[in-house]
Amino acid sequence: MSDELVTRLRSALGDGAVVDDPDVLDGHRNDHATFCTGGTARALVRPSSTAEVQEVLRAATALRVPVVTQGARTGLSGAANAVDGCLLLSTSRLNRIVEISAEDQVAVVQPGVVNADLSRAVLEQGLFYPPDPSSWEQSTIGGNIATNAGGLCCVKYGVTSDFVRGLEVVLASGEVVRTGRRAAKGVAGYDLTRLMVGSEGTLGVVTEATLALRPEPEAALTAAATFLTIEDGIAAAAAVMASGLRPSLLEFLDQPTLRAIQGYRDMGLPENVGSMLLAQSDRGARAAEDVARIAAICAEHGAVDVAEASDAEESRMLLEARRLVNPALEPLGITLIDDVSVPRSQLVTLLRGIAEIGAKYDVLICCPGHVGDGNMHPTVVFDRDDEAAEARALEAFGAVMELGLRLGGTITGEHGIGTLKAQWLETELGPVGLELHRRIKAAFDPLNLLNPGKVLL
Amino acid sequence: MSDELVTRLRSALGDGAVVDDPDVLDGHRNDHATFCTGGTARALVRPSSTAEVQEVLRAATALRVPVVTQGARTGLSGAANAVDGCLLLSTSRLNRIVEISAEDQVAVVQPGVVNADLSRAVLEQGLFYPPDPSSWEQSTIGGNIATNAGGLCCVKYGVTSDFVRGLEVVLASGEVVRTGRRAAKGVAGYDLTRLMVGSEGTLGVVTEATLALRPEPEAALTAAATFLTIEDGIAAAAAVMASGLRPSLLEFLDQPTLRAIQGYRDMGLPENVGSMLLAQSDRGARAAEDVARIAAICAEHGAVDVAEASDAEESRMLLEARRLVNPALEPLGITLIDDVSVPRSQLVTLLRGIAEIGAKYDVLICCPGHVGDGNMHPTVVFDRDDEAAEARALEAFGAVMELGLRLGGTITGEHGIGTLKAQWLETELGPVGLELHRRIKAAFDPLNLLNPGKVLL
Repeated sequence: MSDELVTRLRSALGDGAVVDDPDVLDGHRNDHATFCTGGTARALVRPSSTAEVQEVLRAATALRVPVVTQGARTGLSGAANAVDGCLLLSTSRLNRIVEISAEDQVAVVQPGVVNADLSRAVLEQGLFYPPDPSSWEQSTIGGNIATNAGGLCCVKYGVTSDFVRGLEVVLASGEVVRTGRRAAKGVAGYDLTRLMVGSEGTLGVVTEATLALRPEPEAALTAAATFLTIEDGIAAAAAVMASGLRPSLLEFLDQPTLRAIQGYRDMGLPENVGSMLLAQSDRGARAAEDVARIAAICAEHGAVDVAEASDAEESRMLLEARRLVNPALEPLGITLIDDVSVPRSQLVTLLRGIAEIGAKYDVLICCPGHVGDGNMHPTVVFDRDDEAAEARALEAFGAVMELGLRLGGTITGEHGIGTLKAQWLETELGPVGLELHRRIKAAFDPLNLLNPGKVLL
Repeated sequence: MSDELVTRLRSALGDGAVVDDPDVLDGHRNDHATFCTGGTARALVRPSSTAEVQEVLRAATALRVPVVTQGARTGLSGAANAVDGCLLLSTSRLNRIVEISAEDQVAVVQPGVVNADLSRAVLEQGLFYPPDPSSWEQSTIGGNIATNAGGLCCVKYGVTSDFVRGLEVVLASGEVVRTGRRAAKGVAGYDLTRLMVGSEGTLGVVTEATLALRPEPEAALTAAATFLTIEDGIAAAAAVMASGLRPSLLEFLDQPTLRAIQGYRDMGLPENVGSMLLAQSDRGARAAEDVARIAAICAEHGAVDVAEASDAEESRMLLEARRLVNPALEPLGITLIDDVSVPRSQLVTLLRGIAEIGAKYDVLICCPGHVGDGNMHPTVVFDRDDEAAEARALEAFGAVMELGLRLGGTITGEHGIGTLKAQWLETELGPVGLELHRRIKAAFDPLNLLNPGKVLL
């Protein structure tokens, strides 16, 4: 069976496009999710065109071989992990920026284009592709679409789905469908584009995307404020969001995170600081005024220290704490990053509850997050050599999701379900919602060959 | 059969909720679409709660009666028209604003709430619900969701789907599903919310919607500019969109439209004016500066006359031409309003092509539109007593859609498919896309009871 698939693909795509070296396959087993172990693939294929993707899927369907599409494997939920006996479909050769149109403010790209490469290419034409997941230097547009990636600036600009106008998709059958449009507006038929975005490779393989662009934003300035309590920091964030200002970044760091950062590098953060807010305005000549208003709002809400950057270098320094979160947590142990998103009114309850969960299960939980969107990344940190701690960490991880759902939130704001949270999805969707998901999956992929076992168990 | 349905519904919902008076049913036959004649319903039911909607759909499914959900019937595609033997499900008693939360910047509403009522209610709390279809004083949120309604301000703020966070939906089976969330971000599972928005009553009945709100915008000011040619007006609009300004309205009027307006009321528009742009900025203290920049851009692109409002009253006067489009066209004959949306780079070709189509079929076509989004409303005007003209008008209407598709656009930017354009949908979607639509429809509504014959033939 394996031989037949490899032979057929080599004959159709050329020898160089098909790899069955076990070492290479082993290197493509996992994405960046903690605790999600990938299976053993039978081959990896690198198609170079939509027609070749069609060949691959026709072969996979004929031979009933599951297909896992992989971009840069920077995902955090195991969605890109290999499953046993699967064919890995790498988008690495589908990496062409097909077109950038300043007039229509769109880019047309293949899925293997790296986010940062696209962002820089459009910037050269005075344009802006906002979605900025922290993996943007590695992650691909295809992967961003598969997970509906967010990022720091989505508090102002929105997430990946807000910038996907249309898609070319190859279905499991090998058929090609074009969804959406190049035009800004359109309501002809069901929104298949949005259905594909965030579907984590379970409905089809995206081979081309038409993305909306915006004019380049102006220069940004940053403000940073520290508070004695969680409550003050969250209240200040809510007041910023209610003010009519549109910050291009609004980040929160809780006390455990701040202590980890201070332990990693001396940022002069006093021991008693309870939370920190970081905010940015990217309105050029107006940024200083915006930042002053944000600073004033923070002061009104009890900030103990407020700093306003007056230039790009000072802005960079103020954002340093945010950038140090991962480096600071990494030496402390294994990090299990959660991704709950709740209505902003529930943030204090969420953060208080997370502290209680940390105490109950005796694990460190640091909680940085995109506070403007209510999307927090509670990160359970535990000793890599302590099996009991690992078990407690997993229990705490589950308890955080339960809490998020109880507060009217979701188990995942931007990282996706993959395998990491697949057993949690029914709790969020309910049985009727889950059954609709299964029917939609069957409508697109009746043989369940595309990324089986991901999202839907 | 009819008796059994009516008896069952009266028993479940009370006599007052069920109407089978032929005059009332006749009055609910049609929406506002031209040339789309509705069928004869067997009854009209007005449920007051989600549980009652479930009762209605269980009864309809048990008796295999098609169900057409109706809001205010202001739609322009026949999507809300009765089909023979159907049950009309009116949302008129599901008209409660359940909650407005300033903290979470959301409103929770039932589908029968009128757009203007919601907009005014949130404004009282300093909040803003942007979608503003021209029917907003009559049309309901449920209808806006069913059609993914746009409007004037979506050039800055987006369309209805951009403001729908989550839905409660009753399926044809009578089961209830909740989609989406109250939180700002979430990627758990497929985007069923977006799939419902714009599905024109074919997938389920929305019984509650959680809508995103924004802080109230500041005061708006308007600029108006006239040009000798279409090309100059379109080029000026493109330059405004490329400038980084975010106009909260950017409308275009072509020469036939301007002549009709001038004929209806003397606006002092010279005969040789080829196009007009209307633009608005809603940034309060900055609006004057924005409007001055827009005026300068128009002047650079050959405007023959540019007016900048300095207050709300002057703004209102400048927008008068836009408001007079429908009153001015109405006395000229029957109006068949199209809704093509194309990439902005194709607008000149579209407008030139529309003029040729008008000449070829010997009908007047006026072309106002939301130029910032490339969404035009070419309106075929013809004598109501001339059957030959009616036939030519329909041919011209089709030719405009063909042209829009050829230019990479869509047959409908914001009005929907309904019955008016159902025979055109496959041309836009292609056979694979259409087949996916059919499978999705079957996944939600296997007996094809919800709005049969609309969208999908």
